[in-house]
Amino acid sequence: MMRLKTEVVTVHTTHPFVIARGGSSEWRVVWVRLIDEDGVEGWGEAAPSRFYGETADTVLAALERLRAIIEGAHASDIELIESAMVTTLRFNAAARCGVSAALHDLQGKRLGVPLWKLWGLTPSASPRSSFTIAIAADEDTLRARVREAVAAGYPILKVKLGSDRDRRIIQLVRDEAPDAILRVDANAAWTPKQTLAMAPLLTELCVEFIEQPLPPTDIDGLRFVRDRCDLPIVADESCLVATDVAKLVGVVDGVNLKLAKCGSLREALRIIHTARAHGMLVMAGCMIETSLGITAAAHLGPLLDAVDLDGAALLRDDPFVGATITNGVVTLPTAPGLGVTRR
Amino acid sequence: MMRLKTEVVTVHTTHPFVIARGGSSEWRVVWVRLIDEDGVEGWGEAAPSRFYGETADTVLAALERLRAIIEGAHASDIELIESAMVTTLRFNAAARCGVSAALHDLQGKRLGVPLWKLWGLTPSASPRSSFTIAIAADEDTLRARVREAVAAGYPILKVKLGSDRDRRIIQLVRDEAPDAILRVDANAAWTPKQTLAMAPLLTELCVEFIEQPLPPTDIDGLRFVRDRCDLPIVADESCLVATDVAKLVGVVDGVNLKLAKCGSLREALRIIHTARAHGMLVMAGCMIETSLGITAAAHLGPLLDAVDLDGAALLRDDPFVGATITNGVVTLPTAPGLGVTRR
Repeated sequence: MMRLKTEVVTVHTTHPFVIARGGSSEWRVVWVRLIDEDGVEGWGEAAPSRFYGETADTVLAALERLRAIIEGAHASDIELIESAMVTTLRFNAAARCGVSAALHDLQGKRLGVPLWKLWGLTPSASPRSSFTIAIAADEDTLRARVREAVAAGYPILKVKLGSDRDRRIIQLVRDEAPDAILRVDANAAWTPKQTLAMAPLLTELCVEFIEQPLPPTDIDGLRFVRDRCDLPIVADESCLVATDVAKLVGVVDGVNLKLAKCGSLREALRIIHTARAHGMLVMAGCMIETSLGITAAAHLGPLLDAVDLDGAALLRDDPFVGATITNGVVTLPTAPGLGVTRR
Repeated sequence: MMRLKTEVVTVHTTHPFVIARGGSSEWRVVWVRLIDEDGVEGWGEAAPSRFYGETADTVLAALERLRAIIEGAHASDIELIESAMVTTLRFNAAARCGVSAALHDLQGKRLGVPLWKLWGLTPSASPRSSFTIAIAADEDTLRARVREAVAAGYPILKVKLGSDRDRRIIQLVRDEAPDAILRVDANAAWTPKQTLAMAPLLTELCVEFIEQPLPPTDIDGLRFVRDRCDLPIVADESCLVATDVAKLVGVVDGVNLKLAKCGSLREALRIIHTARAHGMLVMAGCMIETSLGITAAAHLGPLLDAVDLDGAALLRDDPFVGATITNGVVTLPTAPGLGVTRR
């Protein structure tokens, strides 16, 4: 039987992180620890998303509610524990995700292999990660951020749009980063009309794809836009779990999975497999989270087309060391489990 | 680097095994062995299916063609090896399946855990297996077979139909096994009209579902039948790999996966995840194969709604010992890897 321990960890982004819905500089995440009878310990991160009604405090409350399931189970019964958690607490994906990551960390540590190896994957197959350019207060700040990202060697930039200056922003980013691969993310802020109005400029600037232009539930709108737009459309807020992929077939070209949305590393695999069966592009993103959470997602890398795993790179006080990103190249740990240590 | 060794194993069914397409008593399968540098050995079975153009000899030829990929790879790069095999030899699923099973066996043995545990599964969650009642030469033979299955404690019988005496057969089986759960499998032998004509009797006799009533490519026919039939329709010959599941959404109620059709344990997981995302029933079946092949499929049991894993139980000279079936209850091995030994 395992013991569950939780701890709130407060971290700060180097710059205020602002997207279409607002932003902040201080972020509270929950460090989940599962300690097995013999002392072997698995770690996971629960990065709460305000968009889904979560804060560090709701995560802690959710974990208390899940405590009996976790502490009453055998650590190796991962599928069973995850199912029981979903039945007990369908929402609160971040909390469940922290437990799922900790269970997989524990399993890898017990067997003495990194998670990617446990899954039969090859780290070199991981795509390079993008770096996110958040919405800046003014053009000088934006220009400085793009130059910083280019100087840091990121070959792919993901540009947050959904402001009243979107055309200026993307044009400025392209001017400052002429060789970068650009992707844009409107975080559900556009209408179908706005999306189609932006599309020609985005195509002209060689943007690779548009992430979540429309509100999450506007499935008809996404289909409408996709049918009329040259650029691939990728669903983020519209796609939480694998059954959402089923609903998005013929509606979008790809999905962006996040562990904090789907609540489980296994659900992430289910999303990947379902999307692949339908010939859809699959990427993984992240919240603002530490290297503990990022590393869990990074282990999925070899199965993905694109990754956006800069959540920890945006922090100035990341308390964990795990997967690293240099020039966009994701290097997976070789230590057992997630392979994450405390700094 | 691994070495690949192959050996043809000839086995015999206790009774001639006849389905809609014909049958036989003697079966040749291929025993695949992967021997890693340090001598750790993984085993898998390639059970050729004549329906897909395979014989033991085509399997051996396919494995020779795949030898360079396998012997040039690291045993832990399972995803990579499987992708390379598909690229090199898209068909010949049975041959690839033997290698896939051997790679997973090797991984489990190296890590010291049975495959179900490596996958985080709980063996007690496996559904009970059905036992197959093949098409018999006459009613006395059929009656004797059903009595034998009932006496052996099988609670679920899968009745092969697709003969000119289908109504008599299913009535006789129900009379002899009044308490059994019955499923029928027409092995693609019916027309839509015949299926709908049979449906009322099957409903009356409390048959649970109909497997593959129509030819594999008759997708419109399957949809037509499913829309007009009370009983769930399960695709077998129409569903080889996960992309087939995508094509069967809204067409059938479930799919029957077989390792010898999908060519890989990982593809089997992809089929399961895709079907689940669409709310479809998922079962696993088998060919006539030894306990080596059956056990590989049995490790998937905890993820399935139904299993039909009597392939080895139908043999009188099974050379392997692995998963066992008693009263329909599948018991998974606890030894590392597949947990199969030579008798």
